[in-house]
Amino acid sequence: MKESAVKKIAVLTSGGDSPGMNAALRAVVRTANYYNIECYGVREGYNGLIHDDFLKMGARSVKNIINQGGTILKSARSVEFRTKEGRQKAFENCQKLGIDGLVCIGGDGTFTGAKIFSEEFGIRVIGVPGTIDNDIFGTDNTIGYDTALNTAMDAIDKIRDTATSHNRVFFVEVMGRDAGFIALNSGLATGALDILIPERKDSIEDLFGKFRNAEKTGKASSIVVVAEGEKLANVYELAEKTKAEFPDYDIRVAVLGHMQRGGSPSCADRVLASRLGYGAVVGLMNGETNVMAGMRSNDLTYTPIEEAIKKHNEINKDLLLISEILAI
Amino acid sequence: MKESAVKKIAVLTSGGDSPGMNAALRAVVRTANYYNIECYGVREGYNGLIHDDFLKMGARSVKNIINQGGTILKSARSVEFRTKEGRQKAFENCQKLGIDGLVCIGGDGTFTGAKIFSEEFGIRVIGVPGTIDNDIFGTDNTIGYDTALNTAMDAIDKIRDTATSHNRVFFVEVMGRDAGFIALNSGLATGALDILIPERKDSIEDLFGKFRNAEKTGKASSIVVVAEGEKLANVYELAEKTKAEFPDYDIRVAVLGHMQRGGSPSCADRVLASRLGYGAVVGLMNGETNVMAGMRSNDLTYTPIEEAIKKHNEINKDLLLISEILAI
Amino acid sequence: MKESAVKKIAVLTSGGDSPGMNAALRAVVRTANYYNIECYGVREGYNGLIHDDFLKMGARSVKNIINQGGTILKSARSVEFRTKEGRQKAFENCQKLGIDGLVCIGGDGTFTGAKIFSEEFGIRVIGVPGTIDNDIFGTDNTIGYDTALNTAMDAIDKIRDTATSHNRVFFVEVMGRDAGFIALNSGLATGALDILIPERKDSIEDLFGKFRNAEKTGKASSIVVVAEGEKLANVYELAEKTKAEFPDYDIRVAVLGHMQRGGSPSCADRVLASRLGYGAVVGLMNGETNVMAGMRSNDLTYTPIEEAIKKHNEINKDLLLISEILAI
Amino acid sequence: MKESAVKKIAVLTSGGDSPGMNAALRAVVRTANYYNIECYGVREGYNGLIHDDFLKMGARSVKNIINQGGTILKSARSVEFRTKEGRQKAFENCQKLGIDGLVCIGGDGTFTGAKIFSEEFGIRVIGVPGTIDNDIFGTDNTIGYDTALNTAMDAIDKIRDTATSHNRVFFVEVMGRDAGFIALNSGLATGALDILIPERKDSIEDLFGKFRNAEKTGKASSIVVVAEGEKLANVYELAEKTKAEFPDYDIRVAVLGHMQRGGSPSCADRVLASRLGYGAVVGLMNGETNVMAGMRSNDLTYTPIEEAIKKHNEINKDLLLISEILAI
Repeated sequence: MKESAVKKIAVLTSGGDSPGMNAALRAVVRTANYYNIECYGVREGYNGLIHDDFLKMGARSVKNIINQGGTILKSARSVEFRTKEGRQKAFENCQKLGIDGLVCIGGDGTFTGAKIFSEEFGIRVIGVPGTIDNDIFGTDNTIGYDTALNTAMDAIDKIRDTATSHNRVFFVEVMGRDAGFIALNSGLATGALDILIPERKDSIEDLFGKFRNAEKTGKASSIVVVAEGEKLANVYELAEKTKAEFPDYDIRVAVLGHMQRGGSPSCADRVLASRLGYGAVVGLMNGETNVMAGMRSNDLTYTPIEEAIKKHNEINKDLLLISEILAI
Repeated sequence: MKESAVKKIAVLTSGGDSPGMNAALRAVVRTANYYNIECYGVREGYNGLIHDDFLKMGARSVKNIINQGGTILKSARSVEFRTKEGRQKAFENCQKLGIDGLVCIGGDGTFTGAKIFSEEFGIRVIGVPGTIDNDIFGTDNTIGYDTALNTAMDAIDKIRDTATSHNRVFFVEVMGRDAGFIALNSGLATGALDILIPERKDSIEDLFGKFRNAEKTGKASSIVVVAEGEKLANVYELAEKTKAEFPDYDIRVAVLGHMQRGGSPSCADRVLASRLGYGAVVGLMNGETNVMAGMRSNDLTYTPIEEAIKKHNEINKDLLLISEILAI
Repeated sequence: MKESAVKKIAVLTSGGDSPGMNAALRAVVRTANYYNIECYGVREGYNGLIHDDFLKMGARSVKNIINQGGTILKSARSVEFRTKEGRQKAFENCQKLGIDGLVCIGGDGTFTGAKIFSEEFGIRVIGVPGTIDNDIFGTDNTIGYDTALNTAMDAIDKIRDTATSHNRVFFVEVMGRDAGFIALNSGLATGALDILIPERKDSIEDLFGKFRNAEKTGKASSIVVVAEGEKLANVYELAEKTKAEFPDYDIRVAVLGHMQRGGSPSCADRVLASRLGYGAVVGLMNGETNVMAGMRSNDLTYTPIEEAIKKHNEINKDLLLISEILAI
Repeated sequence: MKESAVKKIAVLTSGGDSPGMNAALRAVVRTANYYNIECYGVREGYNGLIHDDFLKMGARSVKNIINQGGTILKSARSVEFRTKEGRQKAFENCQKLGIDGLVCIGGDGTFTGAKIFSEEFGIRVIGVPGTIDNDIFGTDNTIGYDTALNTAMDAIDKIRDTATSHNRVFFVEVMGRDAGFIALNSGLATGALDILIPERKDSIEDLFGKFRNAEKTGKASSIVVVAEGEKLANVYELAEKTKAEFPDYDIRVAVLGHMQRGGSPSCADRVLASRLGYGAVVGLMNGETNVMAGMRSNDLTYTPIEEAIKKHNEINKDLLLISEILAI
């Protein structure tokens, strides 16, 4: 193996937490350890860089965390890191320790910070996509997405027990401020009558049409899954409008909320996190910088971090059609 | 065995559904079958009595439902059954089929209906406590309560991952309009900083005091569990007031909602439902009427239905003290 | 409050681990902390006493463990503690630290050790029943039992999917070397055709009779749940004998094994563990010794440890009858 | 849309059941219904074809099954279908009903039967890969594989609680007679010290080397995950050999067994099953025959069924390396 481009690296988790961040952290620390790269954990995201909050991490420091949700390094959104002064302090702290590579686990915002930091100070950075929203370009799935899908699905399954027992209509809001991935997949998986996502121009008449159609086919209860970022209306407004149109319906609203971010990661998320954490360290060693490690078609790839930020994963429109055909 | 007091019975589920209702139904049907009592299922609670919606149920008709949430008979609140005319129709339908005993699975409202019906028409009725709220006198636990506890706890565990990762405060609302059982036990089980329940006179200053104390002991994130029926303020108001007092806190609200009513029943709920379903049929056979079957200290008991309605299970105050001691 | 009978206590977990031991440990540590009793954790059960492996535990040392299976203090069976010399060393180590009370979380074997130790050296001991087997007298449920029931039930539910899809017969062995609690309750909860437990004198002809009866009623697939300690034959022998009698049956065996000991504790187990951990410390403070803390009919009780060892929880025979009636 | 190549189709599930088969069945039935193709379900795999066991399936006949493990059509291995006479009878029954297309959900054996049947009688067939083993060429994942991974992982997580608490070594056997996919991914996801799979030539010395290395790094407990089809030795023999080499180790064996085939399907499996069930019907309509519907790199593809049988999905060798690096 040729000489590594980095000798000492640091790793941080930033932005909204997602299940599998700990598994990714474990992979970063142990891969570094395996290749004799020193590794430091940074507490509370970019804030830790600024406030000199590093801890040296050996192989045993990440034991028994692969199965834990959240992030033992803690996460935070850093206002200070958005200023030149903040980043200057961060760089000085890195320099003091001799850190020449940085693994940033998080989403869009995390990557934007990493990119600027790298461009300003020449420190090598590599991103690892950790967010439940799956809206990052350059990887088929983001770490935490699969777990969040199962969490949302399990909750909707439970709600369906009640919906079916009472012949009710439920409007269920799932996470996804800009992206409908969770809504689309959890909705398909629970036989939702309709799925409303920001990527599609929805109309209330389409929704009403589906209710009318359901009546014809004898469907006595229904679930409508709505992404947080749906543009037509929020979940409460949708419920109200539907009640106005169908006064006989027994309609309820459920907002799944923050539980979607937590929990023990699924097998797919643990494996993905392990591969990307490994890939991040190997990437830094091989001289990569300003890229994001991702898995595409089961291959480890490095996407320019700028592209990862600017482009977005596209919703598979086939799924909307399939969902419509199957939820009758 | 002496002669059975009933020859043909009907069984219905009414009021809010709860996990284990199907297991209770299965027990009623199969116990009746075992003792050669004819058994009819009634669809959609008391509405089915009124609209003559009976189905004859043999042993195989309840296969593979012991593990399913909800109720295959469906449930409903019946406005018509509150009128004399409605109940008259219901009785005529029972008479037509020759039904001389009725098992009513549900909560307070269900039992009130059963009691009036029995007193007016002399039909034997027996109640089975099926509700997640655990607020029925005459049984240590109601069917569905244990499952709801685990559902609430699992959701709060997930939320705690996020709370811990971000040093956040979460106000989590759980079900319980009149009773704090779910809040108290799920809060104790998740290490909640405070638990607010309708049975206790809470003050906002006590809550603030706990936050201040938590700061001193170095607790960086907190969960506050609030019963739906808390009288001090609802979960959003509590969050706002806390934010006003502690402007630095990163505070979020989660309302667990209807998912607490669904899901595959826990082992304890399946066993309880099986015992009470069995006990209901045996009770009717032995001439019991206007009583509720319950388990107290692991013994099958029959409580006058009037008592079951009027009295209420008391919160164990020790648990509040223990919760306070442990959540530091 | 009168003066506490103890000033410094130690706590250990011993014997087979069970879900909720960590929750009990947390309760012991925080209750002690609350009442200003110093508290030490002992690593690896009685071995830690002998090898002077104590760690001082403050309130924060047990954070985030209420939801974790296993025991952070680790457990072990200690051969050395069975010798007078071993116990002498253990006592000297306690004396050195000034420990005047000991909380022992575990089962029968753990309590026997505690009793002898207490009698020999006059140190106050209190037992907390932590075992999945539920075979300890003096408490309605042991810590870990409810979780194990749900784990066994979930596994059998999954096996039933396959049994039903293939019209198969499954013999499933669950834990319980001397006691049939897990078998009886998980079997009842999964609609097992038969449940074989050491407390009942089973005969192979009874089992065959149930299969013959199931054929008559049209039951196409069956689960038979067998306790580890069943005396008639083990699960493989039972399967073979059944195959010899019913050559057409497609019979499989599943041994659930050690997974039944692990996992995040259920809500009931966390609450029970919290109450008993609290009760153990308060008991010591009030001068109790050589007793076990338990919950009976929802009340905290202290049972002489000798009784807890010698007597055993009795299987509820009604459940066997109910199981037979319902599994047709 | 051009005219459909099929007018009446039948669907069956065959071979070992897997979670998601019901979701695939639902998709087949409802897609057919949507495009006005008549659809028949066949009971018990190819046996149902031979014994004329068809049931007409409308959209409502598959309600509330998307979340259920197993297969409501039941599955079986058919000896008779391996004979020319058996297949002749099957064809005559299809002809009688006018069935011109057949969707076969299952694995290798199922596809072999389908291929021969199609070639002999000219009936259009399309395969849908339903097996937990993931060993079918032509699709990135088979239906049920993701669920089985999570089931195996959850069980190993529980076992790890006990392993950690007692400093034990566990040898855990997971399913996979010819393929190591489940072992490799569940082992990686649970931090297994070693993973033994049939695709790699393992040596006992390598395994011992890993134990020795673990001792050096201070790892006190270990899990070794072994695929059912491992060629070096079975899980009991491996445990014995290890005990002979390391007499101090406290070693246990766990065989996860049939529970891996059951359970409510994961979100990924429900989505995959929905897409492939849809793709199967659309494929038949478009004139495809003797192919298998699969998802590769998120695209629906049709692979010649012969290829699906003869070739096999390859284990990703990178994962073995990553597993080795991370499990230290």
